[in-house]
Amino acid sequence: MDNKLNVLKKSGVSSARRGVLRTPHGQIQTPFFMPIATKAAVKTLSSYDMERLGAQIILSNTYHLYLRPGMGVMREYGGLHNFMDWHGPILTDSGGYQVFSLARRRKIKEEGAEFASHIDGSKHLLTPELSMDIQQTLGSDIVMVLDECTPPDYDQKTLNTSIERTVRWAKRSKEHFEQHLDSSNNPGALLFGINQGATDVDLRIKHAQDLVGIGFDGYAIGGLSVGEPFEKSCAVLDALHPVLPTDKPRYFMGGAKPHEIVAYVKRGVDMLDCVLPSRNARHGLLYRFVHDDLNRPDFYETVHVTNSKYAMDKTSLAGSNLESGISNLESRISKIEPDSKFEIQRSGNSSVESELSRYTLGYLHHLFSVDEMLAYRLATMVNVRFYLELMERIRRAIEDGKF
Amino acid sequence: MDNKLNVLKKSGVSSARRGVLRTPHGQIQTPFFMPIATKAAVKTLSSYDMERLGAQIILSNTYHLYLRPGMGVMREYGGLHNFMDWHGPILTDSGGYQVFSLARRRKIKEEGAEFASHIDGSKHLLTPELSMDIQQTLGSDIVMVLDECTPPDYDQKTLNTSIERTVRWAKRSKEHFEQHLDSSNNPGALLFGINQGATDVDLRIKHAQDLVGIGFDGYAIGGLSVGEPFEKSCAVLDALHPVLPTDKPRYFMGGAKPHEIVAYVKRGVDMLDCVLPSRNARHGLLYRFVHDDLNRPDFYETVHVTNSKYAMDKTSLAGSNLESGISNLESRISKIEPDSKFEIQRSGNSSVESELSRYTLGYLHHLFSVDEMLAYRLATMVNVRFYLELMERIRRAIEDGKF
Repeated sequence: MDNKLNVLKKSGVSSARRGVLRTPHGQIQTPFFMPIATKAAVKTLSSYDMERLGAQIILSNTYHLYLRPGMGVMREYGGLHNFMDWHGPILTDSGGYQVFSLARRRKIKEEGAEFASHIDGSKHLLTPELSMDIQQTLGSDIVMVLDECTPPDYDQKTLNTSIERTVRWAKRSKEHFEQHLDSSNNPGALLFGINQGATDVDLRIKHAQDLVGIGFDGYAIGGLSVGEPFEKSCAVLDALHPVLPTDKPRYFMGGAKPHEIVAYVKRGVDMLDCVLPSRNARHGLLYRFVHDDLNRPDFYETVHVTNSKYAMDKTSLAGSNLESGISNLESRISKIEPDSKFEIQRSGNSSVESELSRYTLGYLHHLFSVDEMLAYRLATMVNVRFYLELMERIRRAIEDGKF
Repeated sequence: MDNKLNVLKKSGVSSARRGVLRTPHGQIQTPFFMPIATKAAVKTLSSYDMERLGAQIILSNTYHLYLRPGMGVMREYGGLHNFMDWHGPILTDSGGYQVFSLARRRKIKEEGAEFASHIDGSKHLLTPELSMDIQQTLGSDIVMVLDECTPPDYDQKTLNTSIERTVRWAKRSKEHFEQHLDSSNNPGALLFGINQGATDVDLRIKHAQDLVGIGFDGYAIGGLSVGEPFEKSCAVLDALHPVLPTDKPRYFMGGAKPHEIVAYVKRGVDMLDCVLPSRNARHGLLYRFVHDDLNRPDFYETVHVTNSKYAMDKTSLAGSNLESGISNLESRISKIEPDSKFEIQRSGNSSVESELSRYTLGYLHHLFSVDEMLAYRLATMVNVRFYLELMERIRRAIEDGKF
């Protein structure tokens, strides 16, 4: 396979790196964060909003889209890009995590994962081959192999069995993926392997070596952020660092708080996703920057806007701590690699800035107190913007050699 | 009081008229529709969205805003315009209707309406004077007197008693309003009387004469759209037509379907509000134009987008039947009276057009089926846009002498 990650600069003081990842729907500046459009929409936001926010890529969900609207609709539309009118890159997960976390009467067999839909109880068998078919029908730019997400409480024997099967599923995924490029809605898509092994570092390394032996366009580290301590996640990343090829992107799957993202990027992570910015937004928890120095653990703070002390707070939602960094940074970065197929809409991006600058914490507090849907939307915009700007700041810091 | 309605053209075939209403926050082209921002937001939309949609004025709610966020917050912000960052005109109702429809343990006394909050059961006494205080604190551009909204099932004696009291409340409202212009957040506001009398035409006429005797900047027809037949509403409007002064705006309060709006405007109505476009949107019912001729009762249709037949429908949400009429019409109308203080943002307006044109009925069907909040937002934009465009088409038809 082609090398699709171009590393532009490496940090001298950590394993962080700054690069560009090529996908069929455009280039992505790394390291980057993927807002989650679980069911073909980032909750409360449209694809137009995502462009205005300057998102480079979104993540969507094989399991959910397979159940609703289903592949008939997806074939009719020619894939997810057309369906939701988003023409930047899309990564889709394989469905393995949702079978593990959402579905009922789950049974893992060699053939695949048998489960009952969480919606209507209907029975399904998600095989590696079906997961590839779904993702190729969705027209995903970054396709994930089907894996079994192993919970931290598996005993050693069950864990070993699972990991060995996940290697076999990865092989089957790759074979099927490559054999069906012709019928794919996105033949140029990248295929990523997913490393598992819970917090068993030796097993993680062995599994990563097996995946590298099969050969993928990128490597995800799965099965973390499922309850284990932050330090264990860091230990896994440290252990995997010398094993994973340096010329392929590394994707940390699952939740990460802002300071955790900094720690993961310093351990070589190029890609992250997280439901926290949007989920927390819907509970009235906002993120904002406090210090420019990302190396300080307290570079950000959280604002619980539902607290009555904000009822008369006239701080803008694009307040002084939320600098207008994105558009400036984007223009800097575009000098590095200007021929992106998917252009971030700079004019629209500034509109989000100006839209949020109109509203205050006091107004948002009121909208939450009377349960107006606009509250969830404005708060989501604030937090997604924070996470995207965090990645911009990280990229700039790596470029400037301060990371 | 100054005459603040400038009638530009009268229809030759109906009582419809085309004019301009001056308010402290800008001129409004009449006849017009007011989207309802009950609790300081049109549900799912921001004031930025309202500008993009080309709304000329919004309606907000004394009862709700008095309870939450309360007048302390409103004083701190210097009124509702600043609080929600909407700088076009605002009309506020008096709270009378909500006391009637929402509050618990309601008791009408000469002094005012005693009620318990629907939120926490706290007791309040809404007097005509307090309603004026609240609306002057909100900084409303069009203030409504406190009235008692009489249900259709009142017996004649109760109805008579109520109507006589409503006249006394109207006088008290006007006196208090005029005595407190200095402390108002909007001293140039207009004050409207509200006509009541259920479907008793003689009582309606008598009451209207009493209100005209007191003298207001405009006259609302209240207490309709509360369950009585459409024909009765028309009969009331017909009876009031010769009684109400031609140089003052006439406001039909309450719900109206698109074809009913046409009928009311033909009976001299200049202003309307309605929760239907936004409420129906949240249930997946969309409006769209079918014919250009508004005189046909079937000039529009409703689309129940949750119906499975729309799952693969690629018709755009700004579909062929929803013409891009607003911006063109606005530029036509601005020739008539160009010095509006509040300028409708034409560039933003075209963004709503282009935003809605990106999404299909099939995508919206999916968003409803998976209960994404974006569904409610997109559908609300479609329907508010329809109602605003309907008024544009009505204004154009009057100008062209076809109405």
